[in-house]
Order: sequence, then C-alpha cells, then structure tokens
Amino acid sequence: MKARVTVTLKTGVLDPQGKAIEGGLAALGFAGVDSVRQGKVFDVELNAQDAGAARASLEDMCEKLLANTVIENYAIEIL
Amino acid sequence: MKARVTVTLKTGVLDPQGKAIEGGLAALGFAGVDSVRQGKVFDVELNAQDAGAARASLEDMCEKLLANTVIENYAIEIL
Repeated sequence: MKARVTVTLKTGVLDPQGKAIEGGLAALGFAGVDSVRQGKVFDVELNAQDAGAARASLEDMCEKLLANTVIENYAIEIL
Repeated sequence: MKARVTVTLKTGVLDPQGKAIEGGLAALGFAGVDSVRQGKVFDVELNAQDAGAARASLEDMCEKLLANTVIENYAIEIL
C-alpha cells in the first residue's frame, strides 16, 4: 500500500528556510510572491491489511518519528 | 492565489535520508514498511491573474530554483 505523508509547519511558527526561498525568488525577478513555506513529504510503501490499518500505523509513525507535533502538522493520504 | 509545489526524487535516484527514516521506523518497531522516500513541499502564496498564469510562473520557479530537475520531479497544484 502506498501512502503520502505531508508535514508542514504550524501557522505562526517561523520558517527561515521559506523566507530564504522567498528572497531567492525575488532576487531571480519573480514578482508577486507573497509567502513561501517549506514542508516535507514522505512517500511510504507499507504492508497493511486495509487502508484503515495503514492510516493508524502512519499516524503512529508521525507522532513518534516523522513529525514534531509541537511545531508541525501532518496529513496522511492513502494512494 | 495559493499553490502547493511538491518536489520528489526521480525513480532510481538514491535517497539516503529516506533510508535512514526506514531504519528509524524499523528500530521503533514498525514492521511492514517497505520503503520511504523523502521529498519537499512548498506552500506558495502569489499574485497572479488566473490559475494558468500562476501555474506558468510556478513552473518557471521550479525550473530555476525550487527543484533540481536533473534528479527531481515537481508537481504543481493550485489550491
């Protein structure tokens, strides 16, 4: 089973990497970019009985390793 | 206009970071994880006349800064 986990910074958490990309885009002449925020994506292949079991397992993985839930949100998508 | 750009490694390109996460998950007791590949996601807010113009501008940004098209694919989603 394939799944995609997207981890993004929570609103209000500073994102210096995103700011640097904003600066880079402005320097390259891209006008009209209001904000850039960077996150992570994990493409996971896993064995699970069904989509529900896969989602439960992935939630556990996010809580324990993939995301820092103090500052990050995660979204799980079963493909 | 809000858009999400997802940058992932092309098939066949080694992903040591993904491998490390796989190892970490196995060490935490998650059985049945076949593979993990890590990518990046950019949440961009930009001013554009319409979705088409936004997409064209984002493609240009990907080619020039956001993705290394030698080893990475990108996908643009207008939200």
